[in-house]
Amino acid sequence: MPLLFADPEVAAALDAPTTVAAMRDALRAAHEGRLVAPPRAAAALGGGRMVLTAGHLVGEWYGYRSYDTFGHPESEQVVVLHDGRTGAVRAVAVGEELGSRRTGGLGGVAVDALARPDAVTLGVIGSGRQAWTQVWAAAAVRPLREVTVHSRSAARRAAFAARVRAELGIPARAVGSAEAAVAGRDVVVLATTSTSPVLDAADLAPGTHVNAVGFKQVDRQEFGADLLDRADLLVTDSPAQAAAYAPPMLAALHPYAGRLRDLGAVLAGAVPGRTGADQISLFCSTGLAGTEVFLLDRLVRAAVPA
Amino acid sequence: MPLLFADPEVAAALDAPTTVAAMRDALRAAHEGRLVAPPRAAAALGGGRMVLTAGHLVGEWYGYRSYDTFGHPESEQVVVLHDGRTGAVRAVAVGEELGSRRTGGLGGVAVDALARPDAVTLGVIGSGRQAWTQVWAAAAVRPLREVTVHSRSAARRAAFAARVRAELGIPARAVGSAEAAVAGRDVVVLATTSTSPVLDAADLAPGTHVNAVGFKQVDRQEFGADLLDRADLLVTDSPAQAAAYAPPMLAALHPYAGRLRDLGAVLAGAVPGRTGADQISLFCSTGLAGTEVFLLDRLVRAAVPA
Repeated sequence: MPLLFADPEVAAALDAPTTVAAMRDALRAAHEGRLVAPPRAAAALGGGRMVLTAGHLVGEWYGYRSYDTFGHPESEQVVVLHDGRTGAVRAVAVGEELGSRRTGGLGGVAVDALARPDAVTLGVIGSGRQAWTQVWAAAAVRPLREVTVHSRSAARRAAFAARVRAELGIPARAVGSAEAAVAGRDVVVLATTSTSPVLDAADLAPGTHVNAVGFKQVDRQEFGADLLDRADLLVTDSPAQAAAYAPPMLAALHPYAGRLRDLGAVLAGAVPGRTGADQISLFCSTGLAGTEVFLLDRLVRAAVPA
Repeated sequence: MPLLFADPEVAAALDAPTTVAAMRDALRAAHEGRLVAPPRAAAALGGGRMVLTAGHLVGEWYGYRSYDTFGHPESEQVVVLHDGRTGAVRAVAVGEELGSRRTGGLGGVAVDALARPDAVTLGVIGSGRQAWTQVWAAAAVRPLREVTVHSRSAARRAAFAARVRAELGIPARAVGSAEAAVAGRDVVVLATTSTSPVLDAADLAPGTHVNAVGFKQVDRQEFGADLLDRADLLVTDSPAQAAAYAPPMLAALHPYAGRLRDLGAVLAGAVPGRTGADQISLFCSTGLAGTEVFLLDRLVRAAVPA
């Protein structure tokens, strides 16, 4: 019988340091060609699509995540882990926690690799599940001393700040504008569902690192070309997936595409990361395929010691 | 928490009459356009593919089955059922039972719709899981009085016959040749992994109905064109899937394609089925997409009364 994990089990078992470490290993494996992560596959179902993102850690495991595009209120993702030698299903995870922790973990790796070593303040725009896991993971790689949060709903941003204080033990304030949220911050997180820019790149302090999790395509984007122009360093977790967005991802188009670096290559030292304290770095998160399965494998290893 | 079904739970909950009834309903729903079953989607993983066959019963549920082509010894399929209104995952089934009972159930519908009403003998070539579920389902739609079985392994065919006697209560004999297995039978099942024909169509008695479950493509086929030429009636559970086989399915090519009928249309009375006691009918099983999810929905309804 395979193991079945719902959101409460995932939340209890996957802390931020474990998740960030797993995603660092996944990015290295992808860079080295050990993690095979092909383009997503989809089946049209009339009114929505069933989408599969698959992965294969050669010699270890293979599997996939599924999600759909119907837009139902309680739509859940499924992640399946197969044993790479026998083909048996070792585990199934159902819900949203594994996916959002995965995305948070990738963001944590980006902050660790690209933010200034002395970064201690973070500003976040957005107060949803993705915003939360970005802050949760960033706090595992930098000793954050203050978090500022802005989102459209005053109640939700206040609740988010309270959660940061309660669960992460970090002083946190809800603020009334995006500008106030990002002013003077060492790390900025964009994690909104906005289809138009939510910040002005001129509001960022020199030396800021930005994690962008929301829309970043030519027709819908939570940040504009001004941020791409101002950033000294453009990085993504999957150049292949970034190039395959339809419509295209802004950062994967001329004149930015030539500057867009692979986070796995930065981790491996194959290409440089930040080279100056005043540089602005931008991480364009795509959600490297196969990383949900990678994380489920780690969860299973922790639950069932070999 | 979604329900999780492994093979023992599926086997305990899905009897043959329930399964055949569910597949009859699924074929009718597909014929009426209520069951959306798009072509399969696949992701290449290096050494194998992860494949998704999805389905959507409009207004009720959507979901998919996944399987892989690595050829590992214990490879398992996964079937996922989403609630069509909320998007939540209602159930997950892991293993082989749901899929093989599904295929058996489709075969049972074909026997019920296409075999002579007075059919009472069955000959099967093959002694694996697929052969078993075909006989299991056929016994639910005709009062079988004798089963003959042939397969390459004398031990396996003897065990198969013993299982038919023990579990289905039907007299059964293992025989030493395919010819002996099919001679004078009312219903014949081909359920082998053979890539070359295992029977001679001339060995079939007039009036026989044949269910073909194994390879039926131009380059690998458990029966030859002689059977297609001799059959008066060619039927499949999915003309669309039959037409999409690569390499092509023999029955979906000229001169057979024009005669290939949809089992759902036969059930609906939209096209004729058998019109004479001496006709030979052939059911080319493709495994209509979405039917595994259809069956999982029935299993869940039985397990959790509304």
